[in-house]
Order: sequence, then C-alpha cells, then structure tokens
Amino acid sequence: MSPKLTAKGAATRQRIIEGAAAEIRERGVAVTTLDDVRARTGTSKSQLFHYFPEGKEALLLAVAEFEAGQVLAVQQPQLGELDSWAAWRRWRDTVVSHYRTRGQFCPLNVLISQLGRATPGAQKVVSQMLRRWQDEITAGIRRMQEAGEVAADLDAGRTAAALLAGLQGGVVVMLSTGRVDHLEAALDVGIENLRASGNRG
Amino acid sequence: MSPKLTAKGAATRQRIIEGAAAEIRERGVAVTTLDDVRARTGTSKSQLFHYFPEGKEALLLAVAEFEAGQVLAVQQPQLGELDSWAAWRRWRDTVVSHYRTRGQFCPLNVLISQLGRATPGAQKVVSQMLRRWQDEITAGIRRMQEAGEVAADLDAGRTAAALLAGLQGGVVVMLSTGRVDHLEAALDVGIENLRASGNRG
Repeated sequence: MSPKLTAKGAATRQRIIEGAAAEIRERGVAVTTLDDVRARTGTSKSQLFHYFPEGKEALLLAVAEFEAGQVLAVQQPQLGELDSWAAWRRWRDTVVSHYRTRGQFCPLNVLISQLGRATPGAQKVVSQMLRRWQDEITAGIRRMQEAGEVAADLDAGRTAAALLAGLQGGVVVMLSTGRVDHLEAALDVGIENLRASGNRG
Repeated sequence: MSPKLTAKGAATRQRIIEGAAAEIRERGVAVTTLDDVRARTGTSKSQLFHYFPEGKEALLLAVAEFEAGQVLAVQQPQLGELDSWAAWRRWRDTVVSHYRTRGQFCPLNVLISQLGRATPGAQKVVSQMLRRWQDEITAGIRRMQEAGEVAADLDAGRTAAALLAGLQGGVVVMLSTGRVDHLEAALDVGIENLRASGNRG
C-alpha cells in the first residue's frame, strides 16, 4: 500500500495511474514502459519512484484497481437504483452496450492476465470488485423483494452471485468468440427468473 | 488443418499432442519447448515437423483442441444424460468437483491466453467447444420439457446459453479468487429455476 499522501500527492499519483491506464488502453500492456508513462504524464523518474517504489508491477496493480472502479462506474447510476423492472432493464442494456462497444478489448482482463491471476495483489483487486458488484445486485434484489416483486424467500446474495457469474461468463465468451449472445442470455434469463419468482406467490 | 493421415500417422500425431498436453500441465506453457515435447514423446525433429509443419503455435492449437475435448469428456456420462433432476444434480456435482480439485489450474485457459483469445484458430476451438457443450445442455432441457418437468414454452437454447455463461463465469471467478461459490451458485440457481418453471404450469 502507498504511504499517506497529501492532497497534491494523491492527485499526482492519480494522474500517473490514469495516464498509465490510457497508455495501456491505446498501446497494450506488453509494450507500455515506465518511460512511456513518464512521458505521457510529465513526471520525473524520482516522482514515479516516489509513488510506486516497487516499480511496474505496483503501478499495474494500481491501474487494475482503477480499471475495476471504471467497470463499476460505467454501470452507474443504473446499478445503484435497481428498484423497478424498468430499472433492471436499463442496467441490463447499459452492461450489454458497454461490452458491445468495447468489443474485444477489456483492459481489466488484460491487466489481470499480465499480473497473473493467482498473485495475491491481483486476486485482491478482483475479489473487491466482485464483492462491490455483487453487493449492489443483492441490494437491488432486496429492494424488489420489499416491493413484493421478487419472492420473499429467495436468497438474494446467492441469486446475485449467480447473476454476476452469468455476466462474467458472458463477457469471457464474448472476449473469446466476439459474440454477445451469452451475455444477453445470462442477464435476460436471470432477470426473467427473478421476475417469475414474484409471480409464484 | 493436417493432411490426411494413415491410422499409424494419426496415432503418432495424437501421441505428440497428448505428450505436449502432459508436459504443459506439469511445467507450464511458457517454458515448454518443442525439444521437451520431442524428448517426452520420443519423436524426431522431422517427425514433429511432419505433423506440425507450422511449428509451436499449431501444436499449441492442437493441444487446446485436445484439452477442450477433455473438458467435455470429464463431464460424461452425466452431461449426456440429463433426464431427471437427480441426473442434473450428478452433472452439477461432477462439474464442481472437477474444478474444485483442479483448483487454480485450467490448462485450456492457459493455452487460450497464450495463443491469444482473438486469434482465429483459438476462437474456433473455443466456439466449437461452447457449441457442443451448449447443445448437450439444450438437449437435457428438452428432455425435461418432454417429461413435463420444465415449462414447455421455455426457450431451451437460450436457457442453456445462460446456464453455460454462469458456469464459465463461475470458473473465471474461481481462477481469479480461488473460491468456488459463484460456480455453485450459478449452477444451483440455474437448475432451481428450470425446476421452478415446471411448477408454474
């Protein structure tokens, strides 16, 4: 973890991370060097060393964390307000259109592959992102339960985990095959089943 | 594609592929060389060149194809006989225990990352595997529809796509975090929803 930073220090660190993220999006993680990041962000070697003393891997991890935040941010405000079936539909459309336009390119996936899925740092970034994502979906299911639209006895956390797994799998299939059908099917079937549970009474 | 082979030639080619697959499982794709494969399989340079004139990438692709077949094979006979809820449960348990014991290591995932997800050869291997997998799940859903256990108006293909996406996403989450919860949730919720559809009448 980074040491306590002043507001100005935190802003510089963030500028380096966002510059590195942009460089990696444009040119790929394999060819991006620390010198490229310095050139793009107008920082000196000693500044870069100050904020990322552990070097490139630490910077990549910070970029992965930033990109994980972006994945959640692009789903807002829809993900945070899943309080009607129309709202669930808007979230579903946001997710599909995000991945459809981004196409084969998913910087987070690239970063995690590069860092090694199994390294503790990368695992932590992925686990935290999934946790936040799942918590938002769970909250949405609970709201629908309170509104009487989803069966009260449904396990909201487990159902959210299943929906998130379907979403992740849909993205992986899209990255491997270029087709978005599985992502759409996972979201549509998951939401339809939530809805059907409310009609069972 | 490889030229027409005699039965003996096909057997030699298969021996090379399986030897390479074993070598990659044990030592990792990054460090496995063609010389390692030759040593392990007792083949000469000219033999290796005869069967894989395009070199290491072609061999890796053949190994990926073999591993894709293995992924489907370990699910048999359960995947091919999804004709009762007990059978669905057996398949679910087979999938979970396969990935649980294999843990963080998935040779197909490693191979596809190495080949590049977006290369046409790797895409084709993944697409064909997903297609065969989904077809088997679809057939299982249709059998349950014929038995009156799943709603007749349910789109079997789309539901199978969603279930397969959940399974894939569960595996990806497991590879990233070491936890099998999402895989279990995806399969359990998917199967429960199939079952609930039959009770709606």
